[in-house]
Amino acid sequence: MPSPHPAAWAGAIEQALKGALILPENRCFTLVRRPEGMPVDADFALVTQDAPELQDGQFLLRNHYASLDPAMRGWMDDKPSYFPPIPLGHPIPASTIGVVAASRNDDFPVGSWVAGFGAIEEYTLHRKGSGRKIDRGLLPVVTNYLSIASGVGPTAYFALLDIGKPLAGETVLVTGAAGAVGSLVGQIAKLKGCRTVGIAGGARKCERLLRDYGYDAAIDYKGKSPEELVAAIREAAPDGVDIQFENVGGAILDAGLMTLNDKARVVLCGLISQYNCDPLPTKNLWQLIVKGARIEGFILTQYISRLGEAVPELTSWVREGKLRIDEHIEEGIENALPAFLKLFEGTNDGKMILKLV
Amino acid sequence: MPSPHPAAWAGAIEQALKGALILPENRCFTLVRRPEGMPVDADFALVTQDAPELQDGQFLLRNHYASLDPAMRGWMDDKPSYFPPIPLGHPIPASTIGVVAASRNDDFPVGSWVAGFGAIEEYTLHRKGSGRKIDRGLLPVVTNYLSIASGVGPTAYFALLDIGKPLAGETVLVTGAAGAVGSLVGQIAKLKGCRTVGIAGGARKCERLLRDYGYDAAIDYKGKSPEELVAAIREAAPDGVDIQFENVGGAILDAGLMTLNDKARVVLCGLISQYNCDPLPTKNLWQLIVKGARIEGFILTQYISRLGEAVPELTSWVREGKLRIDEHIEEGIENALPAFLKLFEGTNDGKMILKLV
Repeated sequence: MPSPHPAAWAGAIEQALKGALILPENRCFTLVRRPEGMPVDADFALVTQDAPELQDGQFLLRNHYASLDPAMRGWMDDKPSYFPPIPLGHPIPASTIGVVAASRNDDFPVGSWVAGFGAIEEYTLHRKGSGRKIDRGLLPVVTNYLSIASGVGPTAYFALLDIGKPLAGETVLVTGAAGAVGSLVGQIAKLKGCRTVGIAGGARKCERLLRDYGYDAAIDYKGKSPEELVAAIREAAPDGVDIQFENVGGAILDAGLMTLNDKARVVLCGLISQYNCDPLPTKNLWQLIVKGARIEGFILTQYISRLGEAVPELTSWVREGKLRIDEHIEEGIENALPAFLKLFEGTNDGKMILKLV
Repeated sequence: MPSPHPAAWAGAIEQALKGALILPENRCFTLVRRPEGMPVDADFALVTQDAPELQDGQFLLRNHYASLDPAMRGWMDDKPSYFPPIPLGHPIPASTIGVVAASRNDDFPVGSWVAGFGAIEEYTLHRKGSGRKIDRGLLPVVTNYLSIASGVGPTAYFALLDIGKPLAGETVLVTGAAGAVGSLVGQIAKLKGCRTVGIAGGARKCERLLRDYGYDAAIDYKGKSPEELVAAIREAAPDGVDIQFENVGGAILDAGLMTLNDKARVVLCGLISQYNCDPLPTKNLWQLIVKGARIEGFILTQYISRLGEAVPELTSWVREGKLRIDEHIEEGIENALPAFLKLFEGTNDGKMILKLV
């Protein structure tokens, strides 16, 4: 069913709060089967649920945009992770931004823009303590809040600065360098005075690395043997690599390991090459020993209490024109899967966002 | 040729220093071909060289014992590492202890016991600044200096304490737990108040873990599937693993990764399972992300300036009976290769040492 325009029914809801609620129907993109390898249509169902009834302190968010991130693939598996596997039949969790459609919480009045952790669904019920109001004046376009204030921005910020600890003059190698996180990491590393080398797939992305994100060197991994990739990194990073910011894994991680300096830090932020298949062998872990280097995993959930450090600085950088944000917006909840798969095909140009209304 | 007894010719050498030197012949275990996989006889040759002539400040050490360590396998390859590959035709470098046979350095008089980095050869020329005199009164048996004051002791000490940073009450998982480094790590972790879980191959080694090294739990990896190994670690470490001290790599590293706690530290000290073959795929690096954990390589060369922190404390622990050292001594330079291979077969019981005289 077509979703009602939020403004049209928000008032009705507010009225209804006094008596019996007349709540909208809610289309949800749900997981119905655990994917084997690359997710396919039959793993999901678009179902219509009744929107839940509001209790005191709750509000209903009409989701306008949902963030699509590679990490979601992991949530679909039944493996021990940083939060429980998505139960079958449940909507796919996602960071969203939207407009409050109904509210029994005075802090979140109807009509206000809110960012929250919800799901790929038209409406999300937020309980007391959930959601953050968006100050529309701070960022040029509203979707930027998904890039800066949800997962991607703070991930790039803390993973690079807190795990990588870049020093001016060091060389930072970024894999998946044209991706949502990688493009921010390259720019933040430049702001910190580092030399940046980006690896991406294809000439067009490599052009973006140099032109849009200020990378000092760009390497197209496509068509290169492992040895050629190592040689290309060595050429682009003649003083060796001090920080490898890893988003990809497999052969690309392995090539970078061969170029590390003593005491180098590999920030393990993502392993997108292996979310849908068995990982390629990582053969070069021995380089960690001979260089006294380390691989350290980054998970944003361990930084929730420190988000207040990242978001204002990221916001300032965007306002001052120091940080470029590219977003790739696909439309319609019915396109959730093809949009999500573009992340693994590498055919997105910037942070992948699904427009829901 | 049989080597002359050092005492017999040491005096002769000293005499000879005044005139033309009559130097002993020197049998050396040399690398003549780079091994493919497991080293074989044809990769080495036992050659007799003239002992070099002494210059001012130099002394000639009659090597009595040489330390055989898995890391030597890496030095035989032509790969970038923490020092250059052994040139073909050169003796295999090794830590040794022995007695000064001839000297033009007053700090190292003939007859004194000295530890140094030499080679698997009967005599090593030490230049000024090389070698450390051994105080024979400090440790019960002279070979203990190879265990405590050369690579193994400081490796266990710094890798556990400086990289692992154990806190009392934490759980430390040690792989290769009955090995030279592993047996020390387990004991030092207990001294620091940790729960220790050791993984080793075979029931006999597991008995040693519990009886000789004070491990709280021992796991025999042999005959276990990856899933069974993970289950066994979880059972032995019900609160999860805070520090994984890794000496093995491959499937054993991979199993441990599945049991890590948030912010766990994997100390990557060795990868003995892959020194002679392509590594098995490490599939579970993603656990580093979801746990915010890290793998950090340890290389002793980065700790040379701090050896003075480790050796006295290790020595005290041995003297006080708090640290047990087991040594496995094989005899004869002609047995260098079979003795070395025992390290990879896992048939040694303690630190492998080759007795040369």
